[in-house]
Amino acid sequence: MLSKAHLTSHSRMSGSSIFICGQKNTEKISMSTTGKVIRCKAAIVWKPGGSFSIEEVEVAPPKAKEVRIKMVATALCGTEMKMLKDKNLQHQHYPIIMGHEGAGIVESVGEGVSTVKAGDKVIALFLPQCGECTSCLNSADNFCIKLKQAETHLMSDGTSRFTCKGKPVYHFGNTSTFSEYTVMDEISVAKIDAAAPLEKVFLVSCGFSTGYGGAINTAKVTPGSTCAVFGLGGVGLSVIMGCKAAGATRIIAVDINKDKFEKAKEVGATECINPQDYEKPIQEVLFDLTGDGVDFSFEVIGNPETVAAALASCRESHGVCVIIGLIIGVQLNISGHLFFSGRSLKGSVYGGWKGRDGASKLVSDYMAKKINLDALITHSLNLDKINEAVELMKTGKCVRCVLLL
Amino acid sequence: MLSKAHLTSHSRMSGSSIFICGQKNTEKISMSTTGKVIRCKAAIVWKPGGSFSIEEVEVAPPKAKEVRIKMVATALCGTEMKMLKDKNLQHQHYPIIMGHEGAGIVESVGEGVSTVKAGDKVIALFLPQCGECTSCLNSADNFCIKLKQAETHLMSDGTSRFTCKGKPVYHFGNTSTFSEYTVMDEISVAKIDAAAPLEKVFLVSCGFSTGYGGAINTAKVTPGSTCAVFGLGGVGLSVIMGCKAAGATRIIAVDINKDKFEKAKEVGATECINPQDYEKPIQEVLFDLTGDGVDFSFEVIGNPETVAAALASCRESHGVCVIIGLIIGVQLNISGHLFFSGRSLKGSVYGGWKGRDGASKLVSDYMAKKINLDALITHSLNLDKINEAVELMKTGKCVRCVLLL
Repeated sequence: MLSKAHLTSHSRMSGSSIFICGQKNTEKISMSTTGKVIRCKAAIVWKPGGSFSIEEVEVAPPKAKEVRIKMVATALCGTEMKMLKDKNLQHQHYPIIMGHEGAGIVESVGEGVSTVKAGDKVIALFLPQCGECTSCLNSADNFCIKLKQAETHLMSDGTSRFTCKGKPVYHFGNTSTFSEYTVMDEISVAKIDAAAPLEKVFLVSCGFSTGYGGAINTAKVTPGSTCAVFGLGGVGLSVIMGCKAAGATRIIAVDINKDKFEKAKEVGATECINPQDYEKPIQEVLFDLTGDGVDFSFEVIGNPETVAAALASCRESHGVCVIIGLIIGVQLNISGHLFFSGRSLKGSVYGGWKGRDGASKLVSDYMAKKINLDALITHSLNLDKINEAVELMKTGKCVRCVLLL
Repeated sequence: MLSKAHLTSHSRMSGSSIFICGQKNTEKISMSTTGKVIRCKAAIVWKPGGSFSIEEVEVAPPKAKEVRIKMVATALCGTEMKMLKDKNLQHQHYPIIMGHEGAGIVESVGEGVSTVKAGDKVIALFLPQCGECTSCLNSADNFCIKLKQAETHLMSDGTSRFTCKGKPVYHFGNTSTFSEYTVMDEISVAKIDAAAPLEKVFLVSCGFSTGYGGAINTAKVTPGSTCAVFGLGGVGLSVIMGCKAAGATRIIAVDINKDKFEKAKEVGATECINPQDYEKPIQEVLFDLTGDGVDFSFEVIGNPETVAAALASCRESHGVCVIIGLIIGVQLNISGHLFFSGRSLKGSVYGGWKGRDGASKLVSDYMAKKINLDALITHSLNLDKINEAVELMKTGKCVRCVLLL
């Protein structure tokens, strides 16, 4: 928690001088910006349902236990795509700098920061790991209580570090990666291998870890099992990779966009089916294909009807359905009968990994060639082309478009 | 499956002679009834929502792979109580002989029966164990595919073994224990220790096993954990016993009938709370009491709103809610947000035990004084007083009223 002393000392620091982050300066990380406000580019959404607007913003120095990061690579994840169009996920915190999947280099640290220092490569984490709450202290848990701060869309002292045209700009997901510089809590960044290529490993920030861990940690997919994955975006493909790594022998990929099937097969799907090709409900199609239903199903869309179908696709007795898609703000309407025989419906956040520990480990695994992130990165654009990236994400061919800063 | 030859040979046998089961004959099991129709008393419900009517019925001899049993002890379980009043659970199969919790002695066996013989003590099982289906062959499963036969309310050849006033009477739950004699599939009876007291161990047939196993097998309650049990009937009390046996240190019993609290504490509850004593929703009360919610919650009522409350009472990250109450015919309406953090909602049937194996093991455990069934039996009546037992079950003081035949 911030003390009054911290607030006071940092109020004195912020706004004392401004460093302008121009094209030529983005490559260097130096002490020259420490303690100064940095002026740089960011993609702002000004109103619910709006598109991104590239603006010049001012980024205040980090306060106590905060870190300012020069972002190097970020991407649109399904969450942002939904927030742009889904009224259930829109709130009143505008203007806002979204983005929760990203990696960068620490530019400077606030008072009391001990686990990272300027120059360290880090992963941005929407799921913090405070190390002190009952979840962080429990080996079976990963839902750090500090995640709830994200609901305020502000830093823990109730203020923003971003200003645009004289107005404060809201943070997002404790991360706000769609900015050349951002400020995060120390507990929301994971220090990673200094040799890691940030334009690849940024995927560990959300998409890959959420899907891969959903299969490995949450579902605990067993060798020889049959799995079904509903939704073949970047997270769904990562679920397929997790199922494959866990030894599933049959991985059925389900999507209404058949353009996604080629990539699904590339990363491990053994079959791909389009519900629109059948008159029967998809759960009946899966029972026809498997005889007894699948052992594990994964909903990676965030649609309540698909959740019900994914649960109904499971084996009656021990079938496990994991909800990975974002289903905040919606009601699930599920027949009680589906549970009678013993099925399970499980939630999963960040694939069951603890934030900092999980991200560091997965980057090490990437460096050791134990996991494959490259297959998920299909396009590359600069941040100022983010609206083009939105359009690309709507096609079936783009899994992740890395946005370089 | 029954072959044509089986059906033919048994058609020849049934109805050839009738043995009348009078008061003085009920104690003896002899070959004299083998192959004959037995006339005896049974409690019939003639129409949806009706009460029990004691009638003389004719019980045909068992066909191939079937067993005729002289019932010794049975009881009303929550399922029958719900069927008498809940339109969602009523069907069109009347007249019917209900009852699925009971124990008796094998009177005779049909062709091809090899695992039990006349004179064996057995537990009646609503959950069969065929030993051949994919569930029976999978160590993690218990939902034997043959359970679905219960939906027909007939034996596997599509006919009834019961007749009353010249009309066929429907079976219930593959068991129909509310009759002095009943016919079941061989796969629906568990042979037990010949020394076992049937008027006690009949509870292994459903109530005790469902609750106790729900905690031990389905939830896998962990030592030192905190549990909440919603609904303190016989099954709910058995859940408490399971939580205690698994080493839970805090077991919070929840019911709107405070008359049930004394027994709940007797079997292991550490606290009892009545939601009607609070203005807040019960899930908030449980968070106030525990700080972070409970590790495991159990819904033992079969009410969709209580399921949602029980899930919401769990710890956000690793909380597990097990649905034990019967929720067939109802829709669950649950906020998607409850799953976001990682909670699980699990179904459980017969406490996760395989039918025959589980019942035999639990009776052995009772004989070895590892489990306590006696505390659950609070009243005793003869079958012809079954409507009095219905009234007793509506009070908070009656857990199980054993019905003696």
